[in-house]
Amino acid sequence: MRILIGNHIDDSIRLKSDMASAVQRILWFAADGDLVVLPAPPDEDFLHYVTALTGVDAATLRIHVPPPGRFEHRLLDPRTLTDPGFVRAVAADLDEVSEVFALWPSPQVARLASELGLSHRLPGAAFTRQGGGELANSKAHFRALAAGAGVATAPGAVCHTAEEAAQAMTGLLARTGAVVVKQAHNGSGNGNEIVFAGDAPASGHVGARHLRRLGPGAVERYWSERWAWASAEGRFPVVVECLVPDAESLFTEYLVSDDAVLPTECGVLSYVGRRLDHQSVPLRHLGVDPAVLESLVTQGARLAQVYRAIGYRGFMSADAVADQAGVVRFTEMNAHVSGSVHIYDVIANRIVGVSAQPRRTVAEYAAPACWGTGGMRGFLATAQAIGCHYDPARRIGAILSAPIPAPRDGGPGEPAGLTQPAELAELAEIMVCLAYDTEETRDKLYERLDREFAAQSADPSCRPPY
Amino acid sequence: MRILIGNHIDDSIRLKSDMASAVQRILWFAADGDLVVLPAPPDEDFLHYVTALTGVDAATLRIHVPPPGRFEHRLLDPRTLTDPGFVRAVAADLDEVSEVFALWPSPQVARLASELGLSHRLPGAAFTRQGGGELANSKAHFRALAAGAGVATAPGAVCHTAEEAAQAMTGLLARTGAVVVKQAHNGSGNGNEIVFAGDAPASGHVGARHLRRLGPGAVERYWSERWAWASAEGRFPVVVECLVPDAESLFTEYLVSDDAVLPTECGVLSYVGRRLDHQSVPLRHLGVDPAVLESLVTQGARLAQVYRAIGYRGFMSADAVADQAGVVRFTEMNAHVSGSVHIYDVIANRIVGVSAQPRRTVAEYAAPACWGTGGMRGFLATAQAIGCHYDPARRIGAILSAPIPAPRDGGPGEPAGLTQPAELAELAEIMVCLAYDTEETRDKLYERLDREFAAQSADPSCRPPY
Repeated sequence: MRILIGNHIDDSIRLKSDMASAVQRILWFAADGDLVVLPAPPDEDFLHYVTALTGVDAATLRIHVPPPGRFEHRLLDPRTLTDPGFVRAVAADLDEVSEVFALWPSPQVARLASELGLSHRLPGAAFTRQGGGELANSKAHFRALAAGAGVATAPGAVCHTAEEAAQAMTGLLARTGAVVVKQAHNGSGNGNEIVFAGDAPASGHVGARHLRRLGPGAVERYWSERWAWASAEGRFPVVVECLVPDAESLFTEYLVSDDAVLPTECGVLSYVGRRLDHQSVPLRHLGVDPAVLESLVTQGARLAQVYRAIGYRGFMSADAVADQAGVVRFTEMNAHVSGSVHIYDVIANRIVGVSAQPRRTVAEYAAPACWGTGGMRGFLATAQAIGCHYDPARRIGAILSAPIPAPRDGGPGEPAGLTQPAELAELAEIMVCLAYDTEETRDKLYERLDREFAAQSADPSCRPPY
Repeated sequence: MRILIGNHIDDSIRLKSDMASAVQRILWFAADGDLVVLPAPPDEDFLHYVTALTGVDAATLRIHVPPPGRFEHRLLDPRTLTDPGFVRAVAADLDEVSEVFALWPSPQVARLASELGLSHRLPGAAFTRQGGGELANSKAHFRALAAGAGVATAPGAVCHTAEEAAQAMTGLLARTGAVVVKQAHNGSGNGNEIVFAGDAPASGHVGARHLRRLGPGAVERYWSERWAWASAEGRFPVVVECLVPDAESLFTEYLVSDDAVLPTECGVLSYVGRRLDHQSVPLRHLGVDPAVLESLVTQGARLAQVYRAIGYRGFMSADAVADQAGVVRFTEMNAHVSGSVHIYDVIANRIVGVSAQPRRTVAEYAAPACWGTGGMRGFLATAQAIGCHYDPARRIGAILSAPIPAPRDGGPGEPAGLTQPAELAELAEIMVCLAYDTEETRDKLYERLDREFAAQSADPSCRPPY
């Protein structure tokens, strides 16, 4: 059996708002008899939906929820992992454990493993316990490590003060007219802001929740306003780098062990209006230039070797952009179980079997929260009725990759500790995978679902473009 | 020719008070024709003293001082390294350059090298330019990298919030009764504070400028008071680790190149009352247990290999403690030209020739600033007169390793930007190397100098213990 820990970045690095849905993706990795730790009990419908697809007997899973801690089950409070009662309950529920597997390399996961006498079953335990997760996931340190490995990045700088950032931005804007400002720790484009000096750049492909146009001589003013945001109140260095125009966003993933760096899969991130619209896997089915794929995988592996050398173990996802000339430049490294692993490893490769003939591709969409799905059962019934649900015989159709979040009233029930209004948006997206043969099939599937669920929405403004 | 840059940690990481004297140690590395960058013109007497000992023609050195920048020549303002006029002046004064060599891996050094078209002559230029110097010199990241390499450290934790620090301290105090709190970026013990719960520990061997005794239940109060100091206003993580009692402080140094990690030398740091009293090299002449030396050098090399893997190039100094049982645990890595390189590489190995028969040892003392030396010439005349100056025939006696700082009145002339009162103390120490055969010789030399210069002091309280 394995211990699967459905956690996320520690709140001491980056306080998220609500991850109770997102971390349930760990259920895709469960096998019979596994022990699963979640911040809140899983959505029962989702649990049975996932296990039906993965062929697991849900009744054999040992679900453990630690005490609520500081976040009322919306987040996994890392401190609660070593709550004595919780540790006792987990210890009492174990057989022979082959691995401790966590979504994010928190020191508290390493402490839990240690208290269970299972440090040897947590790859990279010592590194993780001494804060290696922060180091390995920093977009700032990434730039130094990539430079050290001779891996291409966009021209840019790592800045420790607003003055350094202003100096870097002035130099880079003179060069390209548009830069990306990146927080060291954030995800899904929430921590990125595009700043441009002239006309708005062609930047729809970039994950960047924020966009700013600077008047002449406004760089210093920008930083006096934005340093606190960019540096998370001065806690982390800030990346300022050139925006690569008209580029394709790619990712390449690896599994890093003591002995090797194993390439797992690559994919594409498709942005619409600078927000992630969908991710597609595997890249090898997507008609990408073989030279780009080769450069992506080999440079990414060189990067992953550096992270292996410092002591990181587990899944890694390196993000990159390929420009019009096919030049691949890396933008960040995610040293945790990304939001892609369950898509390619479980849904695409194991459930759909994308490599079997006739081959398939899987795209995961972040559908609008306003869709009137009627919850998970409603979604599945409707998808079935309109012929869009996943059909194992044809290996085509929709699979929900995460629970459908309960609708929010936006009122007093809103979670506390929200650091960015933009983060609220990510709370309630509906994550739908489409397995397809051709892009035409994919687009038809999505349009049909969209038409149906937009029509069923209680919100009359729930119409594309969202 | 080489370009030698007498810099120090960037002020954006740690603002020092006055390094104008300390950085002149770079003159020990100069060869005929080298170009030397210093924040202020060097002490002429010291320049001629050093070059007389190293056999360099001082007239061939090309000394360049950048514009004053923000620190009035007390510190090297990194921004001034790319001042266009300064870059032009340096460029106009170059022949074929074999290496750019800086005391600290500042991104601005990499930018200067780039503007001179000499990036290929600065080892690790790309890593340095992207902020690798901060990463490689962090005492926090050190713990993760050491853990990843399987190199022993004292039990401890890397903390990102006061709450994490309190949790770690409570656990560690229960274990040992005394912990060391370390700032991620500081040096010479200024960034360390010993905190103990019971009686004061035997901790004279530790570099820790601060000492605190906690009453029961006072851990939270301690952190509400000290988190801002320890984290440099929240800017860096904080290390909390067990104090290793009754240990010897050792260091092991390496030169890291693209191809290899070359061990250079080891030494001992001797603390009196938790302040560095003297450092001694080479360790191999100091009667240390061969198993300790072996463990120190091989574990240190394993660590240095990790820093090589991430892209650092140049000198490295790993600090460690050896306990009574001979167990070696590492405490920090200094990824810059430490304050020991000129002592062992130039003074001990090249000038004194410590390995020649009869073999010698060199100890560098931080003598009290109140010594009445009458400046450098006075010091040398007196040392000569009382038979203590270095005698090349006997290879015994005193060598000044840094300029003697001008006496401070402590009044309005005090430097601005002083972040810690304790740092003032380090401004004005007198750095004296003693080359010796036996410890008896060494102690007699020091006592004679001390008696003489204490007697000549205008300050009647200038008497041991200082």
